[in-house]
Amino acid sequence: MALITGARITPVAFADPPLLNTVGVHQPFALRAIIQLDTEAGLVGLGETYADTRHLARLEAAAEAIVGLDVFALNVIRATIAQRLAGDDAAVGTAGMITSASAVDQVFSPFEVACLDVQGHLTGRPVSDLLGGKVRDDVPFSAYLFYKWAAHPGGEPDAWGEAVDPAGIVAQATRMIDEYGFTAIKLKGGVFPPDEEMKAIEALREAFPNHPLRLDPNAAWTPQTSVKVAAGLAGVLEYLEDPTPGLDGMAEVAAQSPMPLATNMCVVAFDQLAPSVAKDSVKVVLSDHHYWGGLHRSRLLAGICDTFGLGLSMHSNSHLGISLAAMVHLAGATPNLSYACDTHWPWKTEEVVKAGALEFRDGAVAVPTTPGLGVEIDDDALGALHEQYLRCGIRDRDDTGYMRSIHPEFENTKPRW
Amino acid sequence: MALITGARITPVAFADPPLLNTVGVHQPFALRAIIQLDTEAGLVGLGETYADTRHLARLEAAAEAIVGLDVFALNVIRATIAQRLAGDDAAVGTAGMITSASAVDQVFSPFEVACLDVQGHLTGRPVSDLLGGKVRDDVPFSAYLFYKWAAHPGGEPDAWGEAVDPAGIVAQATRMIDEYGFTAIKLKGGVFPPDEEMKAIEALREAFPNHPLRLDPNAAWTPQTSVKVAAGLAGVLEYLEDPTPGLDGMAEVAAQSPMPLATNMCVVAFDQLAPSVAKDSVKVVLSDHHYWGGLHRSRLLAGICDTFGLGLSMHSNSHLGISLAAMVHLAGATPNLSYACDTHWPWKTEEVVKAGALEFRDGAVAVPTTPGLGVEIDDDALGALHEQYLRCGIRDRDDTGYMRSIHPEFENTKPRW
Repeated sequence: MALITGARITPVAFADPPLLNTVGVHQPFALRAIIQLDTEAGLVGLGETYADTRHLARLEAAAEAIVGLDVFALNVIRATIAQRLAGDDAAVGTAGMITSASAVDQVFSPFEVACLDVQGHLTGRPVSDLLGGKVRDDVPFSAYLFYKWAAHPGGEPDAWGEAVDPAGIVAQATRMIDEYGFTAIKLKGGVFPPDEEMKAIEALREAFPNHPLRLDPNAAWTPQTSVKVAAGLAGVLEYLEDPTPGLDGMAEVAAQSPMPLATNMCVVAFDQLAPSVAKDSVKVVLSDHHYWGGLHRSRLLAGICDTFGLGLSMHSNSHLGISLAAMVHLAGATPNLSYACDTHWPWKTEEVVKAGALEFRDGAVAVPTTPGLGVEIDDDALGALHEQYLRCGIRDRDDTGYMRSIHPEFENTKPRW
Repeated sequence: MALITGARITPVAFADPPLLNTVGVHQPFALRAIIQLDTEAGLVGLGETYADTRHLARLEAAAEAIVGLDVFALNVIRATIAQRLAGDDAAVGTAGMITSASAVDQVFSPFEVACLDVQGHLTGRPVSDLLGGKVRDDVPFSAYLFYKWAAHPGGEPDAWGEAVDPAGIVAQATRMIDEYGFTAIKLKGGVFPPDEEMKAIEALREAFPNHPLRLDPNAAWTPQTSVKVAAGLAGVLEYLEDPTPGLDGMAEVAAQSPMPLATNMCVVAFDQLAPSVAKDSVKVVLSDHHYWGGLHRSRLLAGICDTFGLGLSMHSNSHLGISLAAMVHLAGATPNLSYACDTHWPWKTEEVVKAGALEFRDGAVAVPTTPGLGVEIDDDALGALHEQYLRCGIRDRDDTGYMRSIHPEFENTKPRW
C-alpha cells in the first residue's frame, strides 16, 4: 500500500501576456494550483490545476477527504471526492467560457495525476506505461496564435509585440514556428469581426501552405455567421472550433459546414456526449484532462470518440510544466489522438518544474521515459511564483473584468456577430 | 522492462453436462485455451480463452508476433495483433451465437489479461489495482439455470439430474442456491415453447420471491412473441435478455417491453454501440472480457454504458478459474456494474488452477488481494485436461451438430417461435 498522508496545495501566479479573446483579455498573471501529494511511502506525486478561489477551497476539502486512501484506489478516491463535493457542482477556472464541466472531475483531476505520478515512482514506470503504453515517442503540438496588445497597460512591452491584424498574426506565427517548429497552427478568434479573422487565416494559409489551420472564436458568432465563415474558409481549415454556442447551434452549423466542427465548450463533460452524438453537433472533441477527470477518464473520452466516430484533439489553458508532462503522457498513450495538441507553452516565461525534462523539437515533445510524470518541482521557483500569487492580488480569472477596467465600454456579448 | 519471450498455449477439455439451449446442447466436453505468457523477468502471466481450431491458430500467430514487447505496452500489443490478423475477422468460439464480435479483441484478450497478471506480480499489486482499484470486496454472481438432460447419451447421469419443466428448474435453483448462496437467478431459455418457459419463471418467482430473475432465450423468438412474453412477465423479470435477433428487432421489442432488454448477442463489439444507442435497442449490455478485448477495454465499455445511460451486467461462457479470476478483478473495479454477474461455475467439475483462491460465499466471490490475478496453475491438472482435450476428439464447439447426432430432426431455426 502507498497511503496518502496529505496534499500541499500551492497557488502560484505566472506572468501572462495581454492575449485577446472574445470575453476580454488575459490578466497580467495567470493562476495555477500546484499539488504535492504526500504518501506514507515517502514518495510525492505532482498535479496541476486551476487556482480560482472556489476551486482552491474544493481542492483543500478533497485533499482532506482522501487522506488514508491508497494511490492505486482511483475509483474510491473519485467517489470520495464526489461525496465531499455533493451539491457543489458549478465548474470554475476557465474565464466563464467552460461553464458546464463537472466540478467533481475538475477537482479529482490533479489528485489522479498526482496518484499516477506516485504509482509510476513505485513501479519504476513512466505514467504513459500506466495508460496502456505510449504509441508514439513524440507528441506534436500546434502553434497557438493570439491577437494581442504590445503590453499590458502601464507595463513593459513583451517580447512578442502587438498582433491586431493579418500581418501581425503572420509575424507571430513565423516567430513561433521558427522557435518551436510547430507543424499545425491554431488562431484564437472571436476578437475582431469575422471578415478580418478570415483574412488572417488566408494570410496564414499563404505564408504556411502546408500547416493545418484551425480557427477558434469561442462561440462568438451566430449560426448564420458561422455558416458564412465556414463556407468562406472551405478547403482552408482543418477544423472550425466552437463557432457558435450550444449543441443545437453547433448542430445547425455542422449540417452546413464543409469542414469538421470541433469543441471544447459545448462538450466538456460526459453527460454532454450522448446529446451531442444524437444531434451530430461536432465531429471533433478537444479533450482536456483538467476537466475531464484526469488521465484515465480522458482515455475513456478517447475510447468514446473512437467508438462513436468522433475525432480527438487536445485543449489547453495557460499551464505550467506539470500539466504539460501529464498532457504528453496522455497524448503519447492515446492511439486515436490524431491532431496536434493545443498548448499555451510559448506564452509563459516562468515555471515551477526543473528545466530539461520537456523540450520542444520540431513542434513536438518527447514522452518522458523516467518514472512517473518525469518532472520535478523546483522549490525555489515554486516559492517565488507563490509569492507572486500573494502579491499580484488576482484571486479569480476574469478576462472580462480586466478588459472593462481598461475599456469600460466592453461588453461580453455572445454571440457578438 | 519486462519483455515477452513467448507464450505457451495449451488447449484443454473439461467435462460439461448436457445443458440445453436454442441451438442445441452442450457437448460432453467444453474447450478452453490456457495461456502462459513468459517474460524475460522470469514471471509468467496467465490467460484463458476459447479453444476452437481457428482461434488456436490465431492465438499462436499472435503469440509469435508479440515476442519482444513489454508487458506494459498494451496499446502496441493490441496493434501488433491487429496487424497480424488483418483481414481475418470472423468471430469464433461461442457456438455460433456470437457471430459479430471482433476477432482482434477476442485474440488480444487473453494476452492482455496475462500481461496484467505479470504487471501485478512486478508491482506487487492485485490486477484490480491496475484497473483503478476495487470498489467492492465481493463480486455477486447469479445462479445460471439450464434446462438439461439427466445424462449425455450413453453416459452416466450427472449430479444435477434432469430439468425439463418448471419443477425441475425450481429443484435445480434450490440446490444451486443452497450450495452457492446466489442472490439472483438467470434461466437459459429458448429451449421449450415460450409459454412453458414463462411457467418456469413464474414457478421460480413463487419459490424465490426476493431473487431478481432473468430469462435468456438467445434470440429464439420473433419480435411479436417477445412482446407477448415481456407483457406476460411484467413485474417479474429484472431484465429480458436477447429475446429476438438483431438491433432492429430488439428495438421493436424494447419500445413495447415493460422491463429493460439486455444483450450479449446484438451488441458484442464496439462498432455495434453507436447503432444500438441510435436505435435504443437495449438498456443493459452484458460485458465479457473474452470478446470485448480484455479488462481495460471492458472498462471502456463500462464507461460508455455509464455515459450513454445503459446498464451493465456480465456474460459468461463455460470457463475455468483463470477467467473467473479475471472477471472478479474486473467486476470488482467497475463502479457501474450494478447487476450480479453470470457464471457457468457450478456446472464444471474440473479445474486448472490450484484450489483456494476463488470461493463462493453468499453467491459472491471475494476479489483476490494477492499480486496479479491471484491464481496459480496446477501443472498436473493442466496436463490432465490437455490429455483429455487430445483424447476427446472435439476441436470446435458445435452444440447443433451434437444435438443432431442425437436427434437428427433438430433444426437450428431462428427465430424458432
